[in-house]
Amino acid sequence: MNKIEHIGIAVKDLNTSIDLYQKLLNTDCYKTEQVTTEFVNTAFFKTGENKVELLQATSPESAIAKFIEKKGEGIHHIAFLVDDILAEMERLHNEGFVLLSDSPKKGADNKMVCFVHPKDTNGVLIEICQEIKWL
Amino acid sequence: MNKIEHIGIAVKDLNTSIDLYQKLLNTDCYKTEQVTTEFVNTAFFKTGENKVELLQATSPESAIAKFIEKKGEGIHHIAFLVDDILAEMERLHNEGFVLLSDSPKKGADNKMVCFVHPKDTNGVLIEICQEIKWL
Repeated sequence: MNKIEHIGIAVKDLNTSIDLYQKLLNTDCYKTEQVTTEFVNTAFFKTGENKVELLQATSPESAIAKFIEKKGEGIHHIAFLVDDILAEMERLHNEGFVLLSDSPKKGADNKMVCFVHPKDTNGVLIEICQEIKWL
Repeated sequence: MNKIEHIGIAVKDLNTSIDLYQKLLNTDCYKTEQVTTEFVNTAFFKTGENKVELLQATSPESAIAKFIEKKGEGIHHIAFLVDDILAEMERLHNEGFVLLSDSPKKGADNKMVCFVHPKDTNGVLIEICQEIKWL
């Protein structure tokens, strides 16, 4: 794990929360992006080499909608940047962690991503991600 | 905010979780520390320039014990490193955020820390922290 790539925060209203996090972090939101496959709208902020990602559900089917219904707004996941997501998935699998997909999925912000089941990690949803390089 | 200094994770059993996070993050715990004023035992891991802090309550009075009782184990707070904690506290106060202490408190890992009330931040407990320099 190279660094914390971003923290994902589940929010009910993206625009309200963008205003709030701009004040909190003292930096402008540099990107918003819809991830249709995950039924979310996202907004990103830079804090040095790390990012904060706000996530708002666009459908009741979204994992973010279910999370907010169960736990309320708050931190949804931590994402760690890795150099080789396939190798890291294999390492985690061999260590006994349960992965939420058999192969990496396309996430926001030009990343391939995979999640680790939170039952194995003290209730923390961990994402590993790798930047996509288009050759 | 310079970077995410660390993510704080509330756990029930520190030793079990140290083993687990060593496997998950593929790095050894580099420090454990008791913070008697906060009734917690802590353990730290480095992931690049960021850290993961595990926190176990040493008393039912601890904020960590109350958090776990209410929400279960999981991410407790995000800490951002700042250059001047007093200036940052003033800036946040002026932006309308409620701070949980009037002055910085001594935290773990040689830091002065202050928390922002999660009611203002979509349920996310935000810590700002500054390294203590002993002259």
